[in-house]
Amino acid sequence: MTPAAKTPAATSPTAARPEQTLAELSEGQVLARIFPRLPGAATQLLGPGDDAAVLRAPDGRFVVTTDMMIQGPDFRMAWSTPHDLGWKAAATNLSDVAAMGARPTALVVAIAAPPSTPISVIEGIADGLRDCCEALAPGCGVVGGDLSASDALTLAVTAFGDLEGREPVLRSGARPGDRVALAGGLGEAGAGLALLFRHGVDANGVPDAALASAVREQYPVEVGAQLAPRPPIDLGPAASLAGATAMMDLSDGLFIDAGRLATASGVGIDFAADSLGDSVGLALGGGEDHGLLATFPAGAVLPEGFRLIGMATDAAGTVLVDGRTHEQGGWDPYRGWDGALG
Amino acid sequence: MTPAAKTPAATSPTAARPEQTLAELSEGQVLARIFPRLPGAATQLLGPGDDAAVLRAPDGRFVVTTDMMIQGPDFRMAWSTPHDLGWKAAATNLSDVAAMGARPTALVVAIAAPPSTPISVIEGIADGLRDCCEALAPGCGVVGGDLSASDALTLAVTAFGDLEGREPVLRSGARPGDRVALAGGLGEAGAGLALLFRHGVDANGVPDAALASAVREQYPVEVGAQLAPRPPIDLGPAASLAGATAMMDLSDGLFIDAGRLATASGVGIDFAADSLGDSVGLALGGGEDHGLLATFPAGAVLPEGFRLIGMATDAAGTVLVDGRTHEQGGWDPYRGWDGALG
Repeated sequence: MTPAAKTPAATSPTAARPEQTLAELSEGQVLARIFPRLPGAATQLLGPGDDAAVLRAPDGRFVVTTDMMIQGPDFRMAWSTPHDLGWKAAATNLSDVAAMGARPTALVVAIAAPPSTPISVIEGIADGLRDCCEALAPGCGVVGGDLSASDALTLAVTAFGDLEGREPVLRSGARPGDRVALAGGLGEAGAGLALLFRHGVDANGVPDAALASAVREQYPVEVGAQLAPRPPIDLGPAASLAGATAMMDLSDGLFIDAGRLATASGVGIDFAADSLGDSVGLALGGGEDHGLLATFPAGAVLPEGFRLIGMATDAAGTVLVDGRTHEQGGWDPYRGWDGALG
Repeated sequence: MTPAAKTPAATSPTAARPEQTLAELSEGQVLARIFPRLPGAATQLLGPGDDAAVLRAPDGRFVVTTDMMIQGPDFRMAWSTPHDLGWKAAATNLSDVAAMGARPTALVVAIAAPPSTPISVIEGIADGLRDCCEALAPGCGVVGGDLSASDALTLAVTAFGDLEGREPVLRSGARPGDRVALAGGLGEAGAGLALLFRHGVDANGVPDAALASAVREQYPVEVGAQLAPRPPIDLGPAASLAGATAMMDLSDGLFIDAGRLATASGVGIDFAADSLGDSVGLALGGGEDHGLLATFPAGAVLPEGFRLIGMATDAAGTVLVDGRTHEQGGWDPYRGWDGALG
């Protein structure tokens, strides 16, 4: 760094101004700073910059899913870094693609933000999108986007996937006698959210960045699972190759989501309590796990990364634990956490 | 209708409650009311209800674009009906697909809304999405979605298209000597917005539904172009078949957008003033036209629906009118409208 570069921005208009806001830049200028940070997609024929992108769909089909994250209901700026937000927006969508047995190929990302937002926040989101794609779905890139003004930071991601010639793995294909298996964590993300609500707020209950940072340092697994989840994307295609009869992404807690799979397939699911960890309630009720719940034929060998957690039965639509009705309909992170913490 | 059905909802829990809000329904219940209103896509292999949808990409490629509309910056509930919002969210995305020379095949739609939103608003948006697809892009359907909570109503649409074996028509393909042509209106949507800002607000400048309705009745073309645009979707593929060398959707005004096409192609554009209507300033500066600006080789016959408005020159990056520099960089609907109204 030259001495001149240390001159404060106010006296040197050419110096870097990291806290420049969106209001000071045109959409074109913002995009020019964002797109170089983003990876292209291996299937990309035409990337950002025209009216639309063009992607290859190698087997003549593509998988598509969309999801929106909004400041307030879905995240708090005091708890999530911009990098976390980009990472999570990518990860949750990639997980939905993987849950079809497809390999994620590309994302398009629409971002709305207040004009007062520092450009560094948007750059951090872009870095999170990139790092998540590179870590969890190499070859998947960001091929287009949109930038708008809003009061609340909003990320709308649409993700695409390639079935590589396989049939999609639906929620409806489980059969009585199938092995029920899981890839990914159970309850950690829900526990992380509860920790943030308990220890990441000030005396008035307002989310606080320093407190959240401290609780993240103390509980990196749980808070990390909540703020920057790492769904087992590779295991979606692996499950499909291994003959999975049904599969879904876990977003609303194992109990609720298993009920959806059971209903769609016309089977029951009976979990083995001892496969659900120390806290069965947390395992069944914690939301945002973003693991893969899958069923495999009775004789199938589970792909590495999946573990057996139960069996499909012929009691259509029921979800049992060790053959008994389980009372917990869903995990509420605002209640009941003390007991789980022990 | 039986006499019993006239009993007010408060005394008859089974009667229809049109003003039921999102807060009273689960996401699943809302989706169950929305999806039956939406058309499936002709290319759809798997529609809503699983982790992702699956679409055919008949020629092994697909076109994708995304755009977000947010209450406040992008629309006002007093001016737009829910049907308008769904229609416009679809139309603007379909137009970006058409501008590549592709035929729109499908949309996915993420909606965020305050919990107090009546379900009828979401149903109206769905109806607008459906009617726009059916009117402007038959065979195009809604194949997936997402529903979230937010303070401001937000619609994020991602649209897909099929190139039907053709190469995409980019912004960068114009050559000096090409004919510059336009399909769709010029300046009407900008004029409509100016009319709404002038006559659709109360004495305090607050948007007012009754006043907006009156100005819409008086100026149906202009206000309709702003609130429920009808971009010439069919003419995107038609232009491609006719040999268009470059094409783009008009969203920020002809002058600005022509400059983008000129810069991308390394040509200049010289408009003929007498082809731009009575108000050249409005034609060049009015935003949100959502027409198609295209260039064709010198000898090409323009497809029906396109009209000649200028020529491509070798003065790279310039936009002229009758060979002269035009001062107006962009239309500001908050200024200058009085003159145009006359």
